[in-house]
Amino acid sequence: MTEQTILAADQIGARAAETPEALVARLAQAGRAAQRELARTSDGQKAAALRAAAAELRQAEPAILAANALDIAAGEAKGLSGAMLDRLRLDSGRLAGIADAVEQVAGLADPVGEVISTSERPNGLQLSRVRIPIGLIGIIYESRPNVTADAAALCLRSGNAALLRGGSEALHSNRAIMAAMTAGLTSAGIPAAAIQLLPTQDRAAVGAMLTAAGLIDMIVPRGGKSLVARVQADARVPVLAHLDGICHTYVHAAADPAMAARLALNAKMRRTGVCGSMETLLLDTQFPASAEVVRGLLDAGCELRGDARARALDPRVLIASDEDWDTEYLDAVLSVAVVDGLDAALDHIAAHSSHHTDAIVTGDAAAAERFLAEVDSAIVMVNASSQFADGGEFGLGAEIGIATGRLHARGPVALEGLTTYKWLVRGTGQARP
Amino acid sequence: MTEQTILAADQIGARAAETPEALVARLAQAGRAAQRELARTSDGQKAAALRAAAAELRQAEPAILAANALDIAAGEAKGLSGAMLDRLRLDSGRLAGIADAVEQVAGLADPVGEVISTSERPNGLQLSRVRIPIGLIGIIYESRPNVTADAAALCLRSGNAALLRGGSEALHSNRAIMAAMTAGLTSAGIPAAAIQLLPTQDRAAVGAMLTAAGLIDMIVPRGGKSLVARVQADARVPVLAHLDGICHTYVHAAADPAMAARLALNAKMRRTGVCGSMETLLLDTQFPASAEVVRGLLDAGCELRGDARARALDPRVLIASDEDWDTEYLDAVLSVAVVDGLDAALDHIAAHSSHHTDAIVTGDAAAAERFLAEVDSAIVMVNASSQFADGGEFGLGAEIGIATGRLHARGPVALEGLTTYKWLVRGTGQARP
Repeated sequence: MTEQTILAADQIGARAAETPEALVARLAQAGRAAQRELARTSDGQKAAALRAAAAELRQAEPAILAANALDIAAGEAKGLSGAMLDRLRLDSGRLAGIADAVEQVAGLADPVGEVISTSERPNGLQLSRVRIPIGLIGIIYESRPNVTADAAALCLRSGNAALLRGGSEALHSNRAIMAAMTAGLTSAGIPAAAIQLLPTQDRAAVGAMLTAAGLIDMIVPRGGKSLVARVQADARVPVLAHLDGICHTYVHAAADPAMAARLALNAKMRRTGVCGSMETLLLDTQFPASAEVVRGLLDAGCELRGDARARALDPRVLIASDEDWDTEYLDAVLSVAVVDGLDAALDHIAAHSSHHTDAIVTGDAAAAERFLAEVDSAIVMVNASSQFADGGEFGLGAEIGIATGRLHARGPVALEGLTTYKWLVRGTGQARP
Repeated sequence: MTEQTILAADQIGARAAETPEALVARLAQAGRAAQRELARTSDGQKAAALRAAAAELRQAEPAILAANALDIAAGEAKGLSGAMLDRLRLDSGRLAGIADAVEQVAGLADPVGEVISTSERPNGLQLSRVRIPIGLIGIIYESRPNVTADAAALCLRSGNAALLRGGSEALHSNRAIMAAMTAGLTSAGIPAAAIQLLPTQDRAAVGAMLTAAGLIDMIVPRGGKSLVARVQADARVPVLAHLDGICHTYVHAAADPAMAARLALNAKMRRTGVCGSMETLLLDTQFPASAEVVRGLLDAGCELRGDARARALDPRVLIASDEDWDTEYLDAVLSVAVVDGLDAALDHIAAHSSHHTDAIVTGDAAAAERFLAEVDSAIVMVNASSQFADGGEFGLGAEIGIATGRLHARGPVALEGLTTYKWLVRGTGQARP
């Protein structure tokens, strides 16, 4: 696999001398036309099409794994890190997991057509608001090839078309997965343009997607912080994303000591690389068992960086710098501060939270309710591990991502977040006086 | 009133040598701090504060009308058009209307705290989604001084802070109205920074508002097309707006002739300058009374611009150019096309609608339901005048505007559209396995 063959493969589906803007416009228009057809597709037909896509993914295992082997070989030649190669690698079990996930999405309830509200006006007009698909969703992602199937399935289940742009390292894997998905969907009568993979790795095409207002209705970036930051900075299309998961756990004076130690350990150490992992622990100065909570984390191999009062709890706690309070470690590292009561905890969280997930541990119901009311994050928890911040754990069946913006959808976003609504007005000839 | 005194007045509240960006950041931070306090304010307290503001507006009538007289004099000196002066002018009756509107908003149900959904997970976690304010809303508007009170009241009622930037022609009126509103609100314990008027007419300050991502959560432009277009083009903050109201009425083959003539006349001619007025009439080739509908509009003084088949209906119909199908006249002018059935009507609407409001007139229930399902506009109507596209007519009590974007809120936007939600998770010590 040479760089040259990769470049040649990049040109599949892109027309000679077509600018990235023209390419994105052409695919987006095809996607929008397909979406208009999708809007007329029944719930059962969409579910059947996704089951057919899952079957094709299983059947195409040899082709998909062969394509993945090309990506892995190219990645090794390029010197990708072991972690990156692991994210990229598919095997029989992982591919079965991808197909299973598509089948699970097929089994989710279709949000389209749900009546959100109804009313009748004094003049007899009947009003209702009904859920409809958003339209064409752009997905920009990095090296995990499973996103190709996951994101396409969620978009399609909710009646949206999807235009995907995966990472160049996963190019062959993504194309093979997309080919199988498309074969399954079209066999069930879904137009092929309902899900499309951008046929170029030209970075200018990402810029063209980000600025395609009126053509792409929403962009969902899936990947690391630098990808999300670039998308948020450059997009002229609405973006659904979270940049950081700087999640806090506040151990209140009235917390049960054993629960506090257990939840702190789980919130940080269960998986340190997920966006819902705790990055800052706030210990109430009145909480009597802070030293034990700190010791539990240190003994589990977590590096602690604390303020003066936190460092007094255990000599192994390192000195925190100002930046530590605004850092998402995604690692076995945690900042720890001792705070003077609920108000100080709320102030710290207001100043430093990324508005993803923040939690309190307390046996005091009034303190819990104040925390729930006043912390302004997408997810606010009482007596639970912040690692529950996940669409599956919330019972949504799947998630396209977690959003920390303020509009449209917040927290784990699944099918409902991929819909919007319209107002239907049924009259009998009413003219406005 | 000289240009110099206006410039001097512009500097009130703006600090010497403060850049527009620094000014907007300072006011936005004050607004955000006030909003955190507002979030703790009860429904009753917010309602009482708005009633106090309405009382202050009534009491301040002499001061507000005197300020308005300064604006009118300056506007006349500047040679503003009669229509602009009319929009600017306040009198005792109009001011009473402004105060009444604030009082009506006080009487609306508070959306904050509403539980949107609840669920319990198998592990015992209790999930709920509750409505919360969006945060700090930026309002950018033109010459109508009533927007100062209207928009501030709607933001405050839904627990949001507001940063307002009115047109320079209404500077003194806006300041006088804001002073009265602030006096009322603060007398009821609301922080003054909850509603603020930008103390400068420097156009760069508008740019600073539009790019204040992270400081201003949403911008609502209220005004003409050029204002909205500028805001949509330059904003890095989410915008809730509609640019155009290119609204269609399609008269289906099975329409009642008298109803069709009555609704077409009302949709166009009741008020030609509102965004919900019809701009294109589509007549089905099978509808037998098209000539009567056309005649009714012409006889009422409407200029009609049609395709060849529409011109054949009446010699007074002028020739439509290609641009006519994409033009919002906001005047007694209408484009008219004869179409070959429902599919052709749907295609025309898909190609030319601004996704604001589109209507069908028909006695055929199946055609009506297809139109409702397939027209992808914020509001879709059957057998009703598109002029009903209005928050008041929809029973929302008021509206901050009509949105034609696809995310967050569509159609008439009132208090609910000024809220977002957060997830509350109540546990009893659950750690994630």
